[in-house]
Amino acid sequence: MSGTSSTKPAPQSRLAIHTITTKPWGLAEAVGHYAAQGIGGVSVWVEAIEGMSAGEAHRIIDDAGLRVPALVRGGFFCDAAASQRQARVDHNLGLIETAAELRAEMIVLVVGAVPGEPLDRQRGWVADAIDRLRGPAAAAGVRLAIEPLHPMYAAERSCINRIAEARRICERLDDPIVGVAVDVYHVWWDPDLSTEIERLGRDGSLFAFHLCDWRVPTRDLLNDRALMGDGCIDLVGLTRQVRAAGFTGWDEVEIFSDEHWQEDQAEFLERIVRRYAAIDQQAG
Amino acid sequence: MSGTSSTKPAPQSRLAIHTITTKPWGLAEAVGHYAAQGIGGVSVWVEAIEGMSAGEAHRIIDDAGLRVPALVRGGFFCDAAASQRQARVDHNLGLIETAAELRAEMIVLVVGAVPGEPLDRQRGWVADAIDRLRGPAAAAGVRLAIEPLHPMYAAERSCINRIAEARRICERLDDPIVGVAVDVYHVWWDPDLSTEIERLGRDGSLFAFHLCDWRVPTRDLLNDRALMGDGCIDLVGLTRQVRAAGFTGWDEVEIFSDEHWQEDQAEFLERIVRRYAAIDQQAG
Repeated sequence: MSGTSSTKPAPQSRLAIHTITTKPWGLAEAVGHYAAQGIGGVSVWVEAIEGMSAGEAHRIIDDAGLRVPALVRGGFFCDAAASQRQARVDHNLGLIETAAELRAEMIVLVVGAVPGEPLDRQRGWVADAIDRLRGPAAAAGVRLAIEPLHPMYAAERSCINRIAEARRICERLDDPIVGVAVDVYHVWWDPDLSTEIERLGRDGSLFAFHLCDWRVPTRDLLNDRALMGDGCIDLVGLTRQVRAAGFTGWDEVEIFSDEHWQEDQAEFLERIVRRYAAIDQQAG
Repeated sequence: MSGTSSTKPAPQSRLAIHTITTKPWGLAEAVGHYAAQGIGGVSVWVEAIEGMSAGEAHRIIDDAGLRVPALVRGGFFCDAAASQRQARVDHNLGLIETAAELRAEMIVLVVGAVPGEPLDRQRGWVADAIDRLRGPAAAAGVRLAIEPLHPMYAAERSCINRIAEARRICERLDDPIVGVAVDVYHVWWDPDLSTEIERLGRDGSLFAFHLCDWRVPTRDLLNDRALMGDGCIDLVGLTRQVRAAGFTGWDEVEIFSDEHWQEDQAEFLERIVRRYAAIDQQAG
């Protein structure tokens, strides 16, 4: 007895890969490989569609039968000069159009940071910027996902370093178009992680779940993320928590790694799929 | 009109240097230079007194007219095996004796971490270990200062990554011999920093204040700390907060830096003293 209607979908159907994960591949090559592995989605980094229109990128992805959880990355709202902050908002308005043309469900916002400015003041700038983007985003049908970044990026990449601060901006704006992207790499250490994930689920603010692992020892602050299972993060436990919080979206794999980029990308992708399938099965 | 009784002490009199800051120097050379600069204290890393007795080290330091805020570093309590955790406690009992012989006011505890073990379980081990050390520490007149480490060290060096978790252990043990060492490098990004510092001050748990700076960009996870003023941390603001919280202890400079260790250490030390004096003056 078998049939598609009674068969649980292959786990890869809710798996999406960020193009940066297989950076050596161009977009068409990447989505071809992803589709061949039964992977359901591709989150598109802006860098991956340089030199082509968003419409063209959408056709490549659509032809391969993939969907687009996210355009990555918008944000970078922080600057001491108000005119620069305005320019960043304008740039993000353009990204909303790009995301709409790509049929991306959301834009992931890495909110930015300026060395030396108080982080709480910067978080105010971020809230103001997102407040101005949420109307156009809603009109375009593109959600805005604030991604808290690890505290080691607080100086120059993100003034939001825990889920709690992202959640507070969501509460302040109180708009279903604005939520949070939870990347295990950035938040795994947070003593408030479980309660914050539950809370995001309850609030309907848990927009995205990004998977990779924390390598021990980590040799580089930027490009030394590990493949799931090669690090110390309790990925099965976290996947369970996210699902228990009501999350039914994509499981997105996002690995930046000089080491993995030097490998055969097809073999690397196969390992990603195997490791993900094991986590997905254990998480239940 | 002038006189020693009405003259504010030179700022260096509350300044202490961690021996690791000028790692190329041996202990005697280091304390000679520190004393010549009018620096009042030296926090002694265990590595700096290898091959000599604690009594001998104390005589070198005492002869130079310096005091010892801290022996650095005890701790590393975490291990999945109970027998290993017992061995770590035993090792720390030995460090308490060393600290007493050095006339160190405290031991700085870097509490340790084991990749893959839940961080909250590990914090329980840490509390248990310190609970067993506090009697002997009190008997020896040596305080125990829990140092929260930056979240980028959560995998393998410290399961305590915010002041809040260190404070909770202090509250649980409720013993004036146990407190917190606040190192700006580890905690500057924490959204709860101001309230936690106030609270430590109120509780009498603010035992130590360590100064350096966060370099932008940071090129290495371990040995790329910056000299005060060369990074993005609001050191004047933090020094003010700590003093407003009632802290009257040492301002300890602790810089690990491959770059600075390659420089002329005497010139580096002069820069440290100048930068510190500027912060001290502005903080008031």
